[in-house]
Order: sequence, then structure tokens, then C-alpha cells
Amino acid sequence: MSIFLAEILGTALLILLGNGVVANCVLNKSKGQNGGWMVITMGWAMAVFVGVFTVGAYSGAHLNSAVTLALAVTGGITWDLVPVYITAQLIGAIIGASLVWAAYKQHFDATTDADGILACFCTAPAIRSTIPNLVTEIIGTFVLIFGVFYITKSEVGLGAVDALPVALLVLAIGLSLGGPTGYAINPARDLGPRIAHFILPIKGKRNSDWGYAWIPVVGPVIGALLAAALHMALK
Amino acid sequence: MSIFLAEILGTALLILLGNGVVANCVLNKSKGQNGGWMVITMGWAMAVFVGVFTVGAYSGAHLNSAVTLALAVTGGITWDLVPVYITAQLIGAIIGASLVWAAYKQHFDATTDADGILACFCTAPAIRSTIPNLVTEIIGTFVLIFGVFYITKSEVGLGAVDALPVALLVLAIGLSLGGPTGYAINPARDLGPRIAHFILPIKGKRNSDWGYAWIPVVGPVIGALLAAALHMALK
Amino acid sequence: MSIFLAEILGTALLILLGNGVVANCVLNKSKGQNGGWMVITMGWAMAVFVGVFTVGAYSGAHLNSAVTLALAVTGGITWDLVPVYITAQLIGAIIGASLVWAAYKQHFDATTDADGILACFCTAPAIRSTIPNLVTEIIGTFVLIFGVFYITKSEVGLGAVDALPVALLVLAIGLSLGGPTGYAINPARDLGPRIAHFILPIKGKRNSDWGYAWIPVVGPVIGALLAAALHMALK
Amino acid sequence: MSIFLAEILGTALLILLGNGVVANCVLNKSKGQNGGWMVITMGWAMAVFVGVFTVGAYSGAHLNSAVTLALAVTGGITWDLVPVYITAQLIGAIIGASLVWAAYKQHFDATTDADGILACFCTAPAIRSTIPNLVTEIIGTFVLIFGVFYITKSEVGLGAVDALPVALLVLAIGLSLGGPTGYAINPARDLGPRIAHFILPIKGKRNSDWGYAWIPVVGPVIGALLAAALHMALK
Repeated sequence: MSIFLAEILGTALLILLGNGVVANCVLNKSKGQNGGWMVITMGWAMAVFVGVFTVGAYSGAHLNSAVTLALAVTGGITWDLVPVYITAQLIGAIIGASLVWAAYKQHFDATTDADGILACFCTAPAIRSTIPNLVTEIIGTFVLIFGVFYITKSEVGLGAVDALPVALLVLAIGLSLGGPTGYAINPARDLGPRIAHFILPIKGKRNSDWGYAWIPVVGPVIGALLAAALHMALK
Repeated sequence: MSIFLAEILGTALLILLGNGVVANCVLNKSKGQNGGWMVITMGWAMAVFVGVFTVGAYSGAHLNSAVTLALAVTGGITWDLVPVYITAQLIGAIIGASLVWAAYKQHFDATTDADGILACFCTAPAIRSTIPNLVTEIIGTFVLIFGVFYITKSEVGLGAVDALPVALLVLAIGLSLGGPTGYAINPARDLGPRIAHFILPIKGKRNSDWGYAWIPVVGPVIGALLAAALHMALK
Repeated sequence: MSIFLAEILGTALLILLGNGVVANCVLNKSKGQNGGWMVITMGWAMAVFVGVFTVGAYSGAHLNSAVTLALAVTGGITWDLVPVYITAQLIGAIIGASLVWAAYKQHFDATTDADGILACFCTAPAIRSTIPNLVTEIIGTFVLIFGVFYITKSEVGLGAVDALPVALLVLAIGLSLGGPTGYAINPARDLGPRIAHFILPIKGKRNSDWGYAWIPVVGPVIGALLAAALHMALK
Repeated sequence: MSIFLAEILGTALLILLGNGVVANCVLNKSKGQNGGWMVITMGWAMAVFVGVFTVGAYSGAHLNSAVTLALAVTGGITWDLVPVYITAQLIGAIIGASLVWAAYKQHFDATTDADGILACFCTAPAIRSTIPNLVTEIIGTFVLIFGVFYITKSEVGLGAVDALPVALLVLAIGLSLGGPTGYAINPARDLGPRIAHFILPIKGKRNSDWGYAWIPVVGPVIGALLAAALHMALK
């Protein structure tokens, strides 16, 4: 399996399972409706586990453009691989989000809350304000990327053996830092599904909130660069 | 322990603990009543853990006819073993479901909601509709089987060392894809207990919803075949 | 550390943490009040984890008279050790229950529900009826002991490396089979704290429900013997 | 990475993620508001996991002045290192608490409950009373430190491989013994963030409850000394 294919597959699994748990908790008549924050964060953690476990051996399971960027900055991967990873992640995220829509089709149709529908695709802040939202995403992503540097045994990414530690790291971030912005901490995780929301013919959907879309991209990029800088300074 | 006996035992444990958690959450006066989606999905995940841990060394702990089918298609087991596995899984599932009835006998008697009683045996969709329900079961089972291929070290099944990863995989599927149909993702898990519901002299039971019974069989079969096909294409 | 001392310490930790989570969820003004079934069962599972992890290397961490009995029947330990283990377990359980009372003293004093206070010591059935309550305890303990035989690498008990699997096994039993009787599945776990409840000068306490006390002893004994018999038949 | 820097970083991560989950559950309009005791305790457990995993290789990841003290008493580290560890832990805790404030800034501003705001920094008892509060902190810390002695392979602290067991130990203590005082079980965890609360210009904050501040310091110190004494007596 090529890096390109592995990142598509792994990110599709990540988003299918990650956005799937949001759909389960948010959409009308779903068996997990109002499942609560433990369900949401454990769902995302297990989504990371499955994605990393499955494709770790093939691409290092970045599944996150912030991880790719940080590993390029610190020399773990070459820069020419960066567009390969990021393109694959976006494609995978769009596929994963579309599969959530397919799996929950009737529940999307039974839901009239357009904000809830959008939440099954991308993040939105609890209190909208540019700088504070950016700061929260920077801090969350910093913890993720800094932690990843100490989990990975190689410098190129994560293997199947790293799937549980990184899943627990994402569980920690979700439980503890997810309150204000819903912890995107991954540009592909937010942008890919937002594009899917924009494209898919979802009944009663609202606009895709493009005004906010740059924050879960720029915030994670800054957080990743800060973590990479600190990691290199500490070596 | 023979494969046949191991699959009976393992599937009986899976269903006793899996359907047990549903009984605990659904039946009247049970201490875990209304325990919520985290309890349900963690219960099923731990049921998988116990079943795989216990009999993995003897049969590869399929405990799921979709797993058996996928491993036969990809050549991990020979086709003449398939009826052995599937028969054992159905017998085990019927035994497990009967033990749930025994363990919760008074709570079944204290429950008048006939749909709730049926839910302690087999799955039912949140919104009934053939194609969407099939699609959801196909997607859920696809993720299960595709993941199993990357968890198993051999091609013949799962060992005790695989019990935790596969349990977390099932946790992920339940949390994220269980909302619409209750994630059967296993023909034996649904059909065996449905037969038990049909046979057992349960007070105030409704019909066993045979009109839906083929969906949690056919959906998982299709999902397993798609996952096997993709896995072979990627090798 | 001698077997006797190790079993006292391990069982004291088990009961302190296990009954502690009940106290946290049940007693008035406690921060975890009404924490729910997930909190209760995870608390007991982690109590098992800590107890087994800590003393596994010294006594095989039975911490449960049903485990001791089953290992004696199957020849893992000699019969002359059985009274040593069981005496230590009862002493440890009484110590552990007394420490729960010490840790939650003000909350016991602030609670007027005498049944709730008793629940912080020993189990009580959701629906009281001798045979069904016995059956539930037999089934739960059977699963525990049968599972333990496949977790333990030696025949003499559990080591630190077995702490996580056996904790997850107890989590499974609690989530799935704890609804009717509160899953004693361990004579020492129920009898020791019941004695503590009888002795301690707890404000506003009810009688110690001695009429039920034999069921969480006899049920687990029968379950353990059945599991030992099946395990030997399968070898 | 020096011990001093590692303890600052590890404790900052511990407090950022630990106090972060309290902020998420307590502060107004946060996505995890009223997440419940499972969210709180799992958040702290994963905070321990991340902190220990990240800096275990550099400082032994004490992240807790009670751990440092116990290891000095038992000879694992020399006494001249004790002020290095404790100073670093306090600095790290203040940094971590300040980052929680930064990440949740708008939610602090949107919260008028001054006790809730203080709870995002330091612990407070459910029922205030000196001796019982001390006793609860002593018992909780005793379990932590006694358990740590059996988790650590060296005598100098915890490595990345110990991150999961110690996280589960803290999960156990939180679930089971956290009800009365909110389980400080760590002088630095309570005192550092209390100082941050005192210093930071938090809107509508109350006083920093200095009258209680000595209990989560002295209780853990006594608990650690008792655990160290028992551990040495058992060797």
C-alpha cells in the first residue's frame, strides 16, 4: 500500500468513526442521541486508534496535516512528501464524511437543526471570537504534536504499536481542551468534511460556515510549528 | 478444545455479556437501567474482549460469521471449516442469549415493553427502511472486517493478544456507527438470539420481527465481502 | 511479603477502591453522587487492577475466595493454603470497608438512606428472590472464574501482567451481569464488608441484611466449582 | 532534557489537561459542561498518562511532590534533588493552570459562579472539616504512593512504560476516593494552580481559599510518608 493510498484509507476511517460519533450523539432518533461528552471523546479516540492501527505500517499514519507539517519541519519526512500526505488526507476526510452521511442518511433527513447537521462535519466554537478560538486550537494542537514526538519511535510517523498511546493522547485533549472549539487540532479533519458538507445534497443544510474555516487550519498549523520548535530546542 | 467447541464457548460468552449489557440498561428495575450509550458500547466491547481472550488460542475466535466468511474468501481458512464455524456460532449465540434470560429472569418478568425485551436479543433499526438499514450494516461490518485483517497476525483468526485491539475496534464501531441499526455487524450475533427469543417462553414477548431478520445477516455478509475484496486488492 | 499479608493488602485495596466508588455515587453531597453505572463498574474494574497489580507477585492476587477455591480444585494451589487465603481475604475486606467509612465519614453522617449506606458495604438484589438471585451470582462468577483460567499463565493465580485483562473481565461482568444482584461474584467481597457494617458504629445504619448474606457466598462457590469442572473437562 | 525542565514540562501538561477537564465540565457554555464524574476522572487519568509518557525518560515523571518525597525517603533519589523537583513542579503547575485560563478565557468570562472558577484551579472539600478532609487526602495519597512503588521498575520514578498503569491507578483513586475532597493527592497540583488563581486577573474571582490550602499539602505528605514506611517495612 502506497503512502498516498494509506493516508486516504486511514483518514477516511478516522473521519468516518470520528464524525460518526458526533452524528450518533447529535442527530434525531439516533440510538446514541445525547450520549454526552464521554461518548464523543471516546469515539474520536477510538477513531484515531483504528486509523493508526490500520495504516500505521504503510504511511506512518499521520492522518493529520499538522502532524505531517511537524514531521517535515523536524526532518522526519522530506518536504516533497508533504503535498502527497495533505492531498491524501483531504481526499480521505471527504470520503469519510460522505460515508457518515450514507450511514446516517435517514437521521440527517429527520434532523431540522442545521447547526447540528453541520457539527457532524466540521467544528464550530462554543463562543465565537477569533483570537480566543485560535488560542484554544493552538494549545490543543501543541499538546498533540508535542506528545506525538515522544510517542513515535521513528521520526516518520506512527506505527500500529503507537495506536493506543496516541488514541489516549487525543482522548486527553478532547476531554480537557475540547470545550471551547470542539478540538479540530487537524486541518484535514475540519476542512475535508466542511468541503463534503458544501458539496453533498444534504436536506435542510445551512451554509458551511466558511468564515470560521481558516481557524481550524491556521490554529493547528501554528500549534504544530510551536511544538516542533520546542521539540528541536530540547534535543 | 476443538474449533467447534471453542466457537460455541466464545460466542456464548460474547452474547451473554453483549446482550447482558442491553438487558441491564433496558429491563425494568435493573441496577444499570438507562445506563446510556457508553455503557452499552463498552459492554459489547468487553464482551468481545472476553470472548476473544478466552478461545482465541483454540479457534481463532471468529465469533462472527462475517469474520469466518471473510477469512475463507481470503484463504485464511478452508471452506469446509465454514459450516463448522457458523453452526458453532449459532449454537453459542442461542446458549448465550438463553443465559441472559436466566440471569435477568425476574427483570424480564417485570418489563412490559415488548420491544425492549426483543432488544435484549436482537437488533432493530431506529428508523426502519430496507436500503438505508442495509447500508449502515454494510459500512459498520466493512470497518470491522477491514480492521480485523490488520489486527490479526495470522490469516486464520484472532489470538488472545488481539483481544484488546479488536475490542477497541468494536467499541469504535458501536460508538460511531451504532446509532441507526444498533450495529449487528455479525449474522450469528443477531440470528442466534432471535431464534432464542422465538423459542424461549418469555412472558409478554412480541413476535421476533422476522421481517427484519435478513438485514443483519445480508448486510454483514456484503460488508465482509467488500472488505475482503479491498484487502486482497491492496496486497 | 507473605501470601497472608499480600492477600490482606490486596483485598483491602480492592474493597477500599471498590466500595469507595459505591460510596462516591450513593452518599449524600459526595462529588460523584449519581455518577451512574459506568462510574460504578469502572471503579470496581480499576479496583481489581490496582489490587492485582500491587500484590500479584506475592500471592497470585486471588483477592476472591471463589478464585482460591477454583485454583485448589484444579490443583494450582494446595488445599492447606485455602484457609490462609480466605482468612486473609476476609481480614483485608474488613479493613478496606473500614477505610471507606473513614474516607467518607462525613458523607455517611450526611446520608439518611440506610439502604444506601448498606450498599456501600455489601450487595443487595434489585428484586429479592432466592433462586433467581443465586442463578445470577452463579452465572457471573462462572464467567469470572472461567475467564481467569485463560488469563493466568501459571495455575497459582494472577501476576501484575494479568491485572489489565482481569480488570476488563470484571468490567465486562459488571456492565453486563451486574444488574440483578450487584455482582458480588466473590464471597470475601460481600461477607467481609457486611461484617464491617455490623461492627462499625455507623450513624443511622439498618440491620446488615444477614438473611441475604449466604447468597453472595454460595452462588459464587457454585459458579466457581462449575467453571473449574468445565475447565478440567476441556483440558 | 534536564530533570528540572522535564518536571516543569510534565507537570504543566498534567495540570493543563487535568484542570482543563474541570474547566470543560464546570464553565458556562463549554461543550463538555456537566460532563459528569466519568469525564472528570478520565480526564485526570489521561492527563497523568500524557505527562508521564512524555517526560518519563528524562525525570522519572514524578509530577507530584508526594511522589518526590516518598522516593527520597526510600532512597530512590537523593535529598538534594528534592527542591529541584518540587520547584519545577510548582512552576509547571502554575504554567499549566495559566494555559487552562488561556484556553478557556471566554468561558471563564462567561461564568459567574466564583466557586466553580476556583474549582478549575484547586480542590475544595464537599463538606468542610479539617480532620475528615485530611483523612481522605491521606488515604487517597497512600493508595497512590503505595501503588507507585509496585508500578515503578526503578526506584527513581516512572518511565513511559509505566504511564498506563499509573494513569489507571489515578483513575481508580478519582472514581473511588475523590468524592469528599476532589482528590488533590499531590501538593504541587493544588498549590501551584491556587497561586495562579491568586495572581491571574480573572474576572469575578473569589479569594483563593487559603484557609484550606494547607490540607492538600499536608494530607498528601502524610499519606506519602505512611506509604513509604509500609513499603520499607514490607521489603
